[in-house]
Amino acid sequence: MNLKMLRYITGQLLLVEGALMLIPLITMLIYGEFGMLYSVLIPIGMLLVLGVLLSLRKPEGSALGAKDGFVVVGLSWIILSFFGCLPFVLSGLIPNFIDAYFETVSGFTTTGASVLFPKQYDMLWNPVDPSMGMRGIFLWRSFTNWIGGMGVLVFVLAIMPQQDMKSSRLVHIMRAEMPGPKVDKIVATVRKTAAIMYGIYVGLTLAQVICLMFGGMDLYEALCVSFSTAGTGGFAIWSDSMVTFGGTVAHIEFCQWVVAIFMFIFSINFNLYYLILTGKALVALFSEELRWFTGITVAATALITYNIYSAYGNLGDALRNAFFQVNTVISTSGFATADFNLWPNLSKTLLLVLMFIGACAGSTGGGVKVSRLVISVKSTWAEIRHMTDPRQIKKVMFEKKSVDKDTVRGVFAYMVAYILIFFVSFLAIAIADGQSIETSFSSVAACLNNVGPGLDAVGPSGNFAFYSPISKIVLTLDMLLGRLELFPILLLFSPSTWKEK
Amino acid sequence: MNLKMLRYITGQLLLVEGALMLIPLITMLIYGEFGMLYSVLIPIGMLLVLGVLLSLRKPEGSALGAKDGFVVVGLSWIILSFFGCLPFVLSGLIPNFIDAYFETVSGFTTTGASVLFPKQYDMLWNPVDPSMGMRGIFLWRSFTNWIGGMGVLVFVLAIMPQQDMKSSRLVHIMRAEMPGPKVDKIVATVRKTAAIMYGIYVGLTLAQVICLMFGGMDLYEALCVSFSTAGTGGFAIWSDSMVTFGGTVAHIEFCQWVVAIFMFIFSINFNLYYLILTGKALVALFSEELRWFTGITVAATALITYNIYSAYGNLGDALRNAFFQVNTVISTSGFATADFNLWPNLSKTLLLVLMFIGACAGSTGGGVKVSRLVISVKSTWAEIRHMTDPRQIKKVMFEKKSVDKDTVRGVFAYMVAYILIFFVSFLAIAIADGQSIETSFSSVAACLNNVGPGLDAVGPSGNFAFYSPISKIVLTLDMLLGRLELFPILLLFSPSTWKEK
Repeated sequence: MNLKMLRYITGQLLLVEGALMLIPLITMLIYGEFGMLYSVLIPIGMLLVLGVLLSLRKPEGSALGAKDGFVVVGLSWIILSFFGCLPFVLSGLIPNFIDAYFETVSGFTTTGASVLFPKQYDMLWNPVDPSMGMRGIFLWRSFTNWIGGMGVLVFVLAIMPQQDMKSSRLVHIMRAEMPGPKVDKIVATVRKTAAIMYGIYVGLTLAQVICLMFGGMDLYEALCVSFSTAGTGGFAIWSDSMVTFGGTVAHIEFCQWVVAIFMFIFSINFNLYYLILTGKALVALFSEELRWFTGITVAATALITYNIYSAYGNLGDALRNAFFQVNTVISTSGFATADFNLWPNLSKTLLLVLMFIGACAGSTGGGVKVSRLVISVKSTWAEIRHMTDPRQIKKVMFEKKSVDKDTVRGVFAYMVAYILIFFVSFLAIAIADGQSIETSFSSVAACLNNVGPGLDAVGPSGNFAFYSPISKIVLTLDMLLGRLELFPILLLFSPSTWKEK
Repeated sequence: MNLKMLRYITGQLLLVEGALMLIPLITMLIYGEFGMLYSVLIPIGMLLVLGVLLSLRKPEGSALGAKDGFVVVGLSWIILSFFGCLPFVLSGLIPNFIDAYFETVSGFTTTGASVLFPKQYDMLWNPVDPSMGMRGIFLWRSFTNWIGGMGVLVFVLAIMPQQDMKSSRLVHIMRAEMPGPKVDKIVATVRKTAAIMYGIYVGLTLAQVICLMFGGMDLYEALCVSFSTAGTGGFAIWSDSMVTFGGTVAHIEFCQWVVAIFMFIFSINFNLYYLILTGKALVALFSEELRWFTGITVAATALITYNIYSAYGNLGDALRNAFFQVNTVISTSGFATADFNLWPNLSKTLLLVLMFIGACAGSTGGGVKVSRLVISVKSTWAEIRHMTDPRQIKKVMFEKKSVDKDTVRGVFAYMVAYILIFFVSFLAIAIADGQSIETSFSSVAACLNNVGPGLDAVGPSGNFAFYSPISKIVLTLDMLLGRLELFPILLLFSPSTWKEK
């Protein structure tokens, strides 16, 4: 491990996080929440001092291998969340540190699992003292979803001075942080790729803000909701998520459709938007992953609409709720327009399975990813054929290209590691808390896949506050493992990682 | 596919099944169940005629490749169950064909999932007319567990005349039928290996029969229980499984301990018994898989004893029930001394996880198998190390030997195929029946891992009778997939399998 480089990058990261905290600071100033300023000013001060100290001495070499990339990413997400949770603790919204850390990791990993009770949302909408209001803090909460969606380290390194870090080194960081079985730059350099990705991200977020304001939201509400949608995070600013928008929004159904459609949009590989922007829309539309993803979404929506139709009594409501819930789960956002905990068993089972499937690679969504599943199925079949007839060496084709051996091995290792981690976590929280099987199982599913709410006690109308500290730590680790696709976090536990060359 | 060879082997198989049905026939004669004789005589007649017809012309070549081995095994289990279920249908115990087929596959695959209600067990113990009694039929039911435990095809081929089938060809059949990531003959030839295995199997079964008769069972009871224990099948002849033995057994607790200990014994790789018999007990005791398996069993028993202690009030009862239930689940037998559905959540969760782990390779138990899990963990870790540092090519060591590449690839393909099949089945029965998530999930877990009872509606006090025919077919397939470790059944669905060379 190149520890000097690790130190330097961490320093830069802290400075960027400090800068990002200016956004809640400005929000507080606008809304006159002067009594709350300290809760972001203190972390900003800490980030500034530490960031400058760590960045002072630039390391000579900028060697950064594949393993270094993984470790840097794994470690920085843990550190990022440490400072990111301070505003929640200091403001008194979530005084307990483990709870606040859980909430922040849940934010950055775009999980959206929350420990907040309705009374805490009340502190936002009905503050006892307006100068002690929570608009800044809740904006920071939603903003963590947005920051984590695209990945913060790629951003940090993309804005780093060229001489500090050669572009060719950055690809390992991008691969470790961006989701999908095979990440590659779409243009010549990582910097440009990152810039294009962020451009598309900002553009789509703004489009959603405008749509929501058409639906009757004010700028604050539209921004918070769009931040959480864009990152497919799912933090809401109302205790009932997206059911009634706290009664502040004029066109509830319109806004629900907007959020649902944008969840779908943010679940698609961003490379496809780049193809569309460069006039290759047809190529984008024929993407194999997109077709699978759309097929699954349509099929699940149809089945659930049929299943809940009698409960809602009219097709419009059933379809809207089904489409919203399917997208919220497969995109791994975790908003809710209905308590699907109360839906029939078939719908609940379908949603539970969708949690595992997840979104497309190269999107902001979580889960196993559609492409990884498709490659898994094809590779397994090829493997069985090969096993029974060694002369049969069939290439695995995906997106009209043959999948190289390393990718297949990576996908298999991911899948096996994924199940093992799943069952270990499931057991661990059962031992620590002994909740019902549905609660324990769906808690791990919701955290490891970065969905947010689960079923039973952690359903859309519940929260994760009741869990013991041990379970909260396990689930926090699961969220990090899920967002960074296992390997960066797993490597942190390997002693050989920490040997300096 | 060598279709001629397939025809010939099927013919031999049917003749052997016909011979095995003489056992319930003799039982009926002993107990004077003359009104029931037709229910086995008709299938015996069919098997004889068909068997002779199919075996008439011997194929010239005896070429039998790896794929042929898989297909022969997959197909013969399906055919075997077809004729095996006829006694249940004809006797009127299970008049519905799909139900009877489900029960028979459950028997041969040593699952032990049943569609019987208490009133059907009553037909055994309180027959209206003794000449129409069910002792022969229930013995056949338990005997299917015993036949399926060791694998019938290896037996068929081992007794086949030498000139019909060269011993070297048989290894593919043995590999396809015997459980475990890597099956090899322990002595020079497959015939001898099979003979040793069956010798150990018969010996241990007899030992259990004697122990149970010491506990107060009569020969009929002891035989039925031992057949189902030896195959780790779990079919009981009492509606409450092993709780009170229908009040016919003097020393209930003693017999429960005997069954529990023999479940443990039959979960261990039979090669180890061969090692002990040949004076290499020390080597056997240091088997890596055995140590893992024992460790898991002890840890789970301790945790569950602790968890249920307050409910039982004394250590003896808690320990006995915990040890029994852990062994019944990890050996994938599926007997019950208590309705663990009513146990605390932690115990239920633990038992659910044990279902997936399963027994040791080369035993009669099902599940994923301990060795496959250990190889998975080690290979995944090696893969991650390799991915992040391509110079690191670490060999995966298991049982002090390096695991060859093909075995690792086979294990990975198995694991991924396993999860995919699991979720497809889970969805399919949810769509068909819409049971609770706990019921659907544990039904698939119990069938795919050949355990038997699951949780909630399919718990120890429930049964699988309520499922729709579609779900029963899905679960039947799952049982076959589980017992034959996926590939033989999957290959039957591949069109290329059926092209004659």
